[in-house]
Amino acid sequence: MAQWKLDKEVDYEVFELGDLKLQKGMTLPDAKLAYKTFGRLNADKSNVIVLLTYMASTHYDNQWVIREGGALDPSKYFIVIPNVFGNGLSSSPSNTPAPYNKARFPHVTYYDNIKAQHRLLTEKFGITKIKMVTGWSMAAAQTFHWAALYPDMVETICPTAGSAKTAKHNHVMLEGVKAALTADDAFKDGWYDEQPFKGLRAMGRVYAGWGFSQEFFRKEEYLELGYASVEDFIVGYWEQWFNLRDANNMVAMIRTWQSGDISDNELYNGDFRKALGAIKAKAIVMPGDCDLYFPPEDSAFEVEHMPNAELRPFRSSHGHFAGGSGLRKADVKFLDEAWRELLAS
Amino acid sequence: MAQWKLDKEVDYEVFELGDLKLQKGMTLPDAKLAYKTFGRLNADKSNVIVLLTYMASTHYDNQWVIREGGALDPSKYFIVIPNVFGNGLSSSPSNTPAPYNKARFPHVTYYDNIKAQHRLLTEKFGITKIKMVTGWSMAAAQTFHWAALYPDMVETICPTAGSAKTAKHNHVMLEGVKAALTADDAFKDGWYDEQPFKGLRAMGRVYAGWGFSQEFFRKEEYLELGYASVEDFIVGYWEQWFNLRDANNMVAMIRTWQSGDISDNELYNGDFRKALGAIKAKAIVMPGDCDLYFPPEDSAFEVEHMPNAELRPFRSSHGHFAGGSGLRKADVKFLDEAWRELLAS
Repeated sequence: MAQWKLDKEVDYEVFELGDLKLQKGMTLPDAKLAYKTFGRLNADKSNVIVLLTYMASTHYDNQWVIREGGALDPSKYFIVIPNVFGNGLSSSPSNTPAPYNKARFPHVTYYDNIKAQHRLLTEKFGITKIKMVTGWSMAAAQTFHWAALYPDMVETICPTAGSAKTAKHNHVMLEGVKAALTADDAFKDGWYDEQPFKGLRAMGRVYAGWGFSQEFFRKEEYLELGYASVEDFIVGYWEQWFNLRDANNMVAMIRTWQSGDISDNELYNGDFRKALGAIKAKAIVMPGDCDLYFPPEDSAFEVEHMPNAELRPFRSSHGHFAGGSGLRKADVKFLDEAWRELLAS
Repeated sequence: MAQWKLDKEVDYEVFELGDLKLQKGMTLPDAKLAYKTFGRLNADKSNVIVLLTYMASTHYDNQWVIREGGALDPSKYFIVIPNVFGNGLSSSPSNTPAPYNKARFPHVTYYDNIKAQHRLLTEKFGITKIKMVTGWSMAAAQTFHWAALYPDMVETICPTAGSAKTAKHNHVMLEGVKAALTADDAFKDGWYDEQPFKGLRAMGRVYAGWGFSQEFFRKEEYLELGYASVEDFIVGYWEQWFNLRDANNMVAMIRTWQSGDISDNELYNGDFRKALGAIKAKAIVMPGDCDLYFPPEDSAFEVEHMPNAELRPFRSSHGHFAGGSGLRKADVKFLDEAWRELLAS
């Protein structure tokens, strides 16, 4: 069974960004980028991997892929996990002082995230080349943004189950998730003192239909994950996941997600094909073949317009969760192989 | 743009069922089956079509398919539309007197619906043969139930975008819809005096991601339906649809839907393959090829185990809504042809 962890102990560093002017026109005062590193930066700073964080996760939830003997081997690589804004560790509605807190937390984009992460890597560590950027879902979107915003810095990318530009259907799916969360009166338009637990749980129940595939349920694969029934899976996995989170943080991350677009910036001025074409990194783009909200067709379009990319879908009943959750061993192996291939290139 | 209609005027009949013992062990007192008929029953009663009603719809929303020159031609056929229990016209939480009203409305199954509809057809009209039973979504489920419960009475069936047994993934998707509705404190566990409008609208927003396909949004087909944007479509189509409904009625119909299973009765004792195999009707089973909650794989399984069935998927970007909504002309034509074929057989 999944164990969602919270930050009971501080095992990460914080990079102080100062007052951060955001892309959409507000300021994030005294902005903080929480991060964790693994391994050691080598002398010529050529062994850097950036591993990004997905929706409603922190570095805690992502660091399981880092292990000796694995592709992301900390004895070989210097691996940085920067926490996405809104996740509760980096600047978020839950940890930003008034007046920019709670419902007033400003709109942060992927562009803002990647610019801040770039400062961490360059100002703090003097890094000029990244061997690989990778991540799942919202972290895949950040991966695409890294490659488009810093094409000369990023050597390879491996975005899994995510997109370079948020599809309209994906936007609608997220509207449903958000509507369930905010239907709870306890949400109080974001000005709650106590978490709107009913809404957070409803959010989890809505997500439960989207995360895995129809086949996953047809084959009763939740049983293999240690749950006793469908309802047990909904409560134990989905409700638990979101019940542990801050509601405004969820809304903030959804906002980031919904506005995802690698071309929405001064480099590409909304020309999505141009932005895809500008990605120099060798890429293995890995959608889940049964992903219900990042369908492989969108990844195929991206790969078609990237100069050095391969489409390599997961063949997995885990839908969106193929390759991200670590729950299905075949997916983990498939991903590890792609990582090794990119790191060896 | 879609025009959801309410029963401002009574244009239907009511068949009095008396105190109805339900399959799951409660009584629906003074139960009523609202229905509407079109055309005239011929002398040998051989021209009967049963058209069923889908989730959150009444006969009003379904009767658009009945027209002179169409397959369901009222100058040739006697067409009966019985309203599903819970839809606000037949016995429902909203119109049943205490103590069986509101949150206490009992669990009604498809079995109960079809048994009641059978009484209408036999007791009221003396019908012994049905030329065709058809319907979309929840109405397709009722169609399958008709064929399995009365194999010697039903000559042909055309279930579109629905299943003979509710899939577990479909169950989970509905849990999300229900969670959004009931997250609104105004729902008051069903004991509201005023409708929980925030919850009803949230329910619509959750449904918005499921109803059509990713391709529908990729191609911006909501523009062709007369909406100005994605948000306009969500509000004007989805929120409007559910905003007009009674919350407890929605919950009651979801409960019926979730427990759908043609083998859950004394005839088949849970043997799903046996129930499918017992269907004598010539069948054209029509899933949408992009349906997100009734995937064609489940229809293929059904057809494989039915003795006289053909799988004929809609090739349509409208996902679940292919063939049901009437919004896409090619789907309407495709369905009309299948109906004609069955009626001519």
